[in-house]
Amino acid sequence: MLPYKTLIQVDKALKLPVYQQIANRLIGLIQEGVLKPGLFLPGSRVLAEQLQLHRKTVIAAYEELISQDWIVPIARKGVMVAANLPVIKPRSFSVLASPYSKGPAFSYPAVPSLNLLPPGPVTATSLVINDGFPDARLAPLNAWVRECRSIIQSPRYHKILMYGDPTGSETLRKEMVKYLTDTRGLNIEMDNIMITRGAQMAIYVAAAMVIKKDDYVIVGSPNYFFADMCFEQLGARLLRVPVDEDGIDVDAVEQLCRTKKIRMLYIITHHHHPTTVTLSAARRMKLLAIIRTYKLAVIEDDYDYDFHYSSAPIVPLASADHGGNVIYIGSFTKSLGLSIRIGFMIAPAAFIAEAAALRRLIDLRGDNLSEEALANLLADGTIARHLKKSNKVYLERRDLLCHLLQTRLGAAVHFTVPPGGMAIWLHFSKKFPLKMISAKAAALGLRMNTGEQYRYGAVSHNANALRFGFASLNNKEIAMVVNILERIIKGKDGLS
Amino acid sequence: MLPYKTLIQVDKALKLPVYQQIANRLIGLIQEGVLKPGLFLPGSRVLAEQLQLHRKTVIAAYEELISQDWIVPIARKGVMVAANLPVIKPRSFSVLASPYSKGPAFSYPAVPSLNLLPPGPVTATSLVINDGFPDARLAPLNAWVRECRSIIQSPRYHKILMYGDPTGSETLRKEMVKYLTDTRGLNIEMDNIMITRGAQMAIYVAAAMVIKKDDYVIVGSPNYFFADMCFEQLGARLLRVPVDEDGIDVDAVEQLCRTKKIRMLYIITHHHHPTTVTLSAARRMKLLAIIRTYKLAVIEDDYDYDFHYSSAPIVPLASADHGGNVIYIGSFTKSLGLSIRIGFMIAPAAFIAEAAALRRLIDLRGDNLSEEALANLLADGTIARHLKKSNKVYLERRDLLCHLLQTRLGAAVHFTVPPGGMAIWLHFSKKFPLKMISAKAAALGLRMNTGEQYRYGAVSHNANALRFGFASLNNKEIAMVVNILERIIKGKDGLS
Repeated sequence: MLPYKTLIQVDKALKLPVYQQIANRLIGLIQEGVLKPGLFLPGSRVLAEQLQLHRKTVIAAYEELISQDWIVPIARKGVMVAANLPVIKPRSFSVLASPYSKGPAFSYPAVPSLNLLPPGPVTATSLVINDGFPDARLAPLNAWVRECRSIIQSPRYHKILMYGDPTGSETLRKEMVKYLTDTRGLNIEMDNIMITRGAQMAIYVAAAMVIKKDDYVIVGSPNYFFADMCFEQLGARLLRVPVDEDGIDVDAVEQLCRTKKIRMLYIITHHHHPTTVTLSAARRMKLLAIIRTYKLAVIEDDYDYDFHYSSAPIVPLASADHGGNVIYIGSFTKSLGLSIRIGFMIAPAAFIAEAAALRRLIDLRGDNLSEEALANLLADGTIARHLKKSNKVYLERRDLLCHLLQTRLGAAVHFTVPPGGMAIWLHFSKKFPLKMISAKAAALGLRMNTGEQYRYGAVSHNANALRFGFASLNNKEIAMVVNILERIIKGKDGLS
Repeated sequence: MLPYKTLIQVDKALKLPVYQQIANRLIGLIQEGVLKPGLFLPGSRVLAEQLQLHRKTVIAAYEELISQDWIVPIARKGVMVAANLPVIKPRSFSVLASPYSKGPAFSYPAVPSLNLLPPGPVTATSLVINDGFPDARLAPLNAWVRECRSIIQSPRYHKILMYGDPTGSETLRKEMVKYLTDTRGLNIEMDNIMITRGAQMAIYVAAAMVIKKDDYVIVGSPNYFFADMCFEQLGARLLRVPVDEDGIDVDAVEQLCRTKKIRMLYIITHHHHPTTVTLSAARRMKLLAIIRTYKLAVIEDDYDYDFHYSSAPIVPLASADHGGNVIYIGSFTKSLGLSIRIGFMIAPAAFIAEAAALRRLIDLRGDNLSEEALANLLADGTIARHLKKSNKVYLERRDLLCHLLQTRLGAAVHFTVPPGGMAIWLHFSKKFPLKMISAKAAALGLRMNTGEQYRYGAVSHNANALRFGFASLNNKEIAMVVNILERIIKGKDGLS
């Protein structure tokens, strides 16, 4: 008889019932070829004794295996390993190594990628310069939890949670029609809206709808790297036009439209990523004419429109006369503290219907509970109050950071104060390569990137710059970060 | 002077400040060509009087427009519509129609789609036969809300919410290593896991990684329609093999592998959708050999493994020797009441790293708050208790439904009792076409589909059948639904 006591080890601390552990192990032994087809297993009494278990447990394991066709009961002879299993080469008695310990044997292409931060864990006390994140401590998360609780206690929640459309909660879309009209002058109906998981999903779905392999897509230089990568992943050829202090160069866009069949334009109209510039009113007018003339598909990514300090934001391209060609993308993610990701796409109803069909293949639909909760927070004014409050705080943080950068880092840096958004596009003098600063900062407990990601695919720029997200840092944290940068810079200069 | 009082209408009930409403409307009038470049606007005092507003409000509006370059202040003459805006053809004075009122001028291809239910709203009292949804009333949503509240009150939540990996929460992946080992015998590490928004996203990401245009993909006939559509959308050519009571025909799979370059196999090993059959142990063994021999990329979709009643489920292909070629997909969505969608993909670490890069382009990352909450519910045993409890309830519901179908509908229907899952694959006799039954049911207050979606792309089957989801209906609701079906069938038979 085989050494069943060694082969089968039971762990009573596991959640899995013991009989099932035995059954699973026996299956493993059959698969490994240790127990060959036609072999009779020991009687239940014998095996129970060997394993020091109750006989009923072994019987339950055998019944399990019989029901799964691994073994067959033979009258008056006991149970036999099923004969109709393919014969398998015997293996060693050692436990099978994980089938996932090595890569797949099939091939697959690489996906464009980059590192946002130097690797390593982020803890509660980590000091990080991020890309421009909101402060989750200010987000109305208690109100959000309260709404979730109240929804799951309502009589209709059962149906709300079960059924739903890939375009998102009807209640939320109704609220959004009002909200987007009030804040952006958008003239839309419910069927012009698809709610997504954050703006990135809206970008992906819109691009996957429009782009075919080798299509030309115009983007800024520089541009939001995850948009570039998304279009490249979908097979697009990117054409880059310069971005200056008034936004993307619209004449260069027109020039390209004249000479090539352009499929799509991707544009960030407010607080361009990474440079934070806003497309001027004059360029908007000109661009609208180009869009109409060339029937250009446009993704207008207006990801942080709701965060603007110095003047009111300019109405989006989407609110003007674009012949239905502008796919407008925005997000509530930054209002909800970044984890609860809810974005949206605005487009003609016929386009939204197709986009919803695609979204269903990618993600079925969104989180109805969160969407209903957000609808309530829009309706009762919580989001408006939160934006008012946090915009005030972010303005203060922006001004504090600008002040400290100027007074403490002086000529080592230069930047333009952005009218909104959550980051400053901070240039360092060539004397202080960001790669060096980032490495020294890590040693002083500050995590920051090297600025490399902002040069993704860049043709005409080579800035020694990074986005300094100020919104998620409170005044004390801003001061700590600038102190560290000052130590690095003055150390390098030999002044300290 | 233009009739500014008519042109500019202010609504003090709007959230948008009045000065901004005026500014937005003036921008609209400039865009519409009503206010032409070079035109002087009335003095602030005059306009304030016309609009019956305080002069300061008009000044604020003008300052806004000046800061946005729409108008320019000319010394001693007032403000003028900027001259460097492109000249625009004048339009009528009527409000500009929504730019989204008609479709885009650019073209885009259709996406495969189908209707799950006859159109119309689902209300709290709607009676619906769904595809196999869980009962959200049983889900541990109060516990989930409690965990969310406790997380946002913890000192580290700020960082938890802000930073995170596209592979998902580390805490949850740690818990999942234990959970998947205990329940499925999976031998994996944290870096074999990517957490997604439900199983559908895992299917999409895996398929988008592997499939190139015109690749052959093997699927069952019939198969889960949204998987078929997903592969077709990605450019695959589908090859269909029969599904019988032991699952997919593995010999037919091998035959195809011998004759064609097969890129991928998609298989549902438990409770196949739509037929509810489970792949037998013998076929699993044979299939594993095929996978190793042909280096076949395999998506094993095990979407409701956790719901099994009659016998224990069979260990997945993923737990056996597949040479790293099986991409295993599962979900917690059905344990969390369907709205909070959390699924996962298991694959070799190198594949997961690329898949995470792609997921980032589609969705950046998941909802850390929900993922952390789920981790806590796995760790404290809430999920295990919920599964135990709800499996007992679902077993009872399945048996009640089977009993009622047999005794009340008799020869009009036939079906096999499924060992697990949330639906019965219910065939109606040809005398009762589902299209007719569905239409009559709608008149009696029952919404059900026509079974058409289960024939999507079908080559060798033409069943007059639908999935009767029993899990989300309580005993009373099950009886009501069967009553309605009985009325329809006996009415048709002339028995009532």
